[in-house]
Amino acid sequence: MENTKVGIVGLGNVGSGVARLLLEESERMTRHAGHQLVLAKAVVRDLSKPREIDLPADVLTDDLASITDDPEIRVVAQLIGGTDVARTVMLRLLESGKDIVTANKALLADHGPELFDRARELNRSIAFEASVCGGIPIITNIGQCLSANQITSLSGILNGTSNFIVSRMEQEGADYPAAVAEAQRLGFAEADPTMDVDGTDAAQKLSILAHLAFGARVHWDEIPRIGIDTLDAADLKYAKELGYRIKLLAIAKLNGELELHVSPTLVREGRPMAEVREAYNAVTVVGDAVGRVFFHGLGAGQMPTASAVVSDLIDTAVGRTRITFQTLELWSGRAPRVKLGDHADARGRFYLRFTIRDHPGVLGDIAGVLGRHDISIASVIQHEPEVHGEDELVPLVIMTHVASEGAAHAAIEEIDSRDYTLQKSVRMRVLD
Amino acid sequence: MENTKVGIVGLGNVGSGVARLLLEESERMTRHAGHQLVLAKAVVRDLSKPREIDLPADVLTDDLASITDDPEIRVVAQLIGGTDVARTVMLRLLESGKDIVTANKALLADHGPELFDRARELNRSIAFEASVCGGIPIITNIGQCLSANQITSLSGILNGTSNFIVSRMEQEGADYPAAVAEAQRLGFAEADPTMDVDGTDAAQKLSILAHLAFGARVHWDEIPRIGIDTLDAADLKYAKELGYRIKLLAIAKLNGELELHVSPTLVREGRPMAEVREAYNAVTVVGDAVGRVFFHGLGAGQMPTASAVVSDLIDTAVGRTRITFQTLELWSGRAPRVKLGDHADARGRFYLRFTIRDHPGVLGDIAGVLGRHDISIASVIQHEPEVHGEDELVPLVIMTHVASEGAAHAAIEEIDSRDYTLQKSVRMRVLD
Repeated sequence: MENTKVGIVGLGNVGSGVARLLLEESERMTRHAGHQLVLAKAVVRDLSKPREIDLPADVLTDDLASITDDPEIRVVAQLIGGTDVARTVMLRLLESGKDIVTANKALLADHGPELFDRARELNRSIAFEASVCGGIPIITNIGQCLSANQITSLSGILNGTSNFIVSRMEQEGADYPAAVAEAQRLGFAEADPTMDVDGTDAAQKLSILAHLAFGARVHWDEIPRIGIDTLDAADLKYAKELGYRIKLLAIAKLNGELELHVSPTLVREGRPMAEVREAYNAVTVVGDAVGRVFFHGLGAGQMPTASAVVSDLIDTAVGRTRITFQTLELWSGRAPRVKLGDHADARGRFYLRFTIRDHPGVLGDIAGVLGRHDISIASVIQHEPEVHGEDELVPLVIMTHVASEGAAHAAIEEIDSRDYTLQKSVRMRVLD
Repeated sequence: MENTKVGIVGLGNVGSGVARLLLEESERMTRHAGHQLVLAKAVVRDLSKPREIDLPADVLTDDLASITDDPEIRVVAQLIGGTDVARTVMLRLLESGKDIVTANKALLADHGPELFDRARELNRSIAFEASVCGGIPIITNIGQCLSANQITSLSGILNGTSNFIVSRMEQEGADYPAAVAEAQRLGFAEADPTMDVDGTDAAQKLSILAHLAFGARVHWDEIPRIGIDTLDAADLKYAKELGYRIKLLAIAKLNGELELHVSPTLVREGRPMAEVREAYNAVTVVGDAVGRVFFHGLGAGQMPTASAVVSDLIDTAVGRTRITFQTLELWSGRAPRVKLGDHADARGRFYLRFTIRDHPGVLGDIAGVLGRHDISIASVIQHEPEVHGEDELVPLVIMTHVASEGAAHAAIEEIDSRDYTLQKSVRMRVLD
């Protein structure tokens, strides 16, 4: 086989890692692809910006046409962020006959159907392993390796920033703002970490995985989500007392209809998912034949993400991507195979924390409200009262048996309206 | 694309699972392969044997020629065990123009080079995802998904039977024979579990993974291995005191030369590998770009293994296997890329347990022997003496810093020759 000429658009952190692998590990790439991958052009916006990697002079350019006009460049890693320019560039690349590899999850979450349709019309392919969970090859595992299965559920720690922050809160007893500041200092959180900590990033990734695994067509904005930005260190402490850790989990569960949500969730200690620390990501996939498979790795960072991009470049260069792309018909005009269920009907166990006035009959009233909403109690922890100013606050933690989201929501609304409730109650799902 | 006609040879436990998926989940297979996979023939030795699955009358046959003579059958799942008949059948199938999918790890470990060479000569392919770790798609992950990386180490719990037995010893304080009996009663161990518990099975799988990841050409019989059949419940207890669990790990580590071995190994609690329970398998792969990726799933059993076989059938039917097979040139005439290092030079931390007579100066003498062999001590546990008949046995547990296998072996030989040593000393590696 002849060489494959490769282009890169966007030479940021990930793009530089991709360039480095292609340039410095050329012999390895040749061995794994059966032929040579040659970095022909790398397109950047600002040629004068200092780069962490030295590129041959004829490779670096600020002219996208040097790729689109070169029919010898077959495969392009499109690594610019955002969604507007990225979409335009992606369309130009497809229209000039390139197969695309991308790491841009927001682009796919917002414009997947348009881009995939266009690629199909033009008989091109799009590979996107790096768009979800960086170094964990979850896209190929779901789309190819587990293809004998009906996936019945997915659950994952898809946002490394959130996991880092929650791990620090847990290990060091830090409160949320301190943990965020530490994550920023160490480079695990952006200056504005909103999209990471409010669940948006995880919901975007979940929408991609849910399409791949279930044929769902759900925009990330429709996915109910709670971030870690409202997480209270007290709940980490109580969860630990109960033998649980709290993780920001993205969940997809098929039960006739599809349940999707992102929220802080209690995971029992000793389960692999509970042991995911720092900025690691993890995904559990349950298939009807394979059972439970668990993947754990670095979900972000320059070289883990570059690893995913380059494996996609190899897959595209050798022809595997084209087959997978044609076979799976992702984001095609086909009707979605599953319907998103009403979140109020989603069922699971709950962790509830009430902050109440120390007063006879309160526990009985709460138990009564829960009972009337068909929520049965699995365990209760009531500690000694804490004195805050004039009030004696009693934290009351209840673990429930399986109940619906709707019932839990309604019961908590009712309890929150009681005079004895001193703070908004907390409710979190418990992983099955 | 037209239908792909598929044959199965061997309708045991896994073969029946594969037939069930092809027959009962036909619509799903069509969706994931982009065209229909049709089970055309299933060849068995004994037609009169009752089967757990009802096959159409024209599918079940005892005549291999009904597959080899039918040019319309393109892909065959070769699922008979053992190595002699399996090798002959595999060659006949290849020579009749079939692409092969197999779950037979012993066959590949013993005859891989011959079979892969023959397949290449005949322009056919062999897929073998199911041969290692059943439901964990480790072959595709190493061979394809992590292809941007130089793998630097692999460590895995590759034998579910051993893990089940060790888990039971640990959780229930059972001794080895009782745990084996329970594993047999529950169907997790064969009537003769020798190959599982003495490390042979894990070494065979490791030889396959080491070829794939490092280009090593090492016969499993050259891999130093210790099974769990000599594991003493006392060591599980001491390991636990130190915050470790014991797992039968298969290790491959690249450090200039390649270190390969299979042995019971201490793994620190809280690491995902330590949390692998029951008959689950797990593999950690470290790549120079991706970092550490951890996979966990069911390593055996009918449907997890069938899941791997059927995903290989789909990959072969759509053409991905052919590409991977041609690209990777596995077990080709190419020289091995790495050399197996001398096991005596392999380095790691050790857990040592001495059983000594309670006598002044003994600890000093042991420390002296270790020191002369350049082994430094990280921690010591010495408990009260236990009285056994006339002797007072003192168990002395030492965790070392990094030392070589050769030094540890020599030091233990020396200590075992001392008068104060009452039982053969125990030495186990500690996972880095």
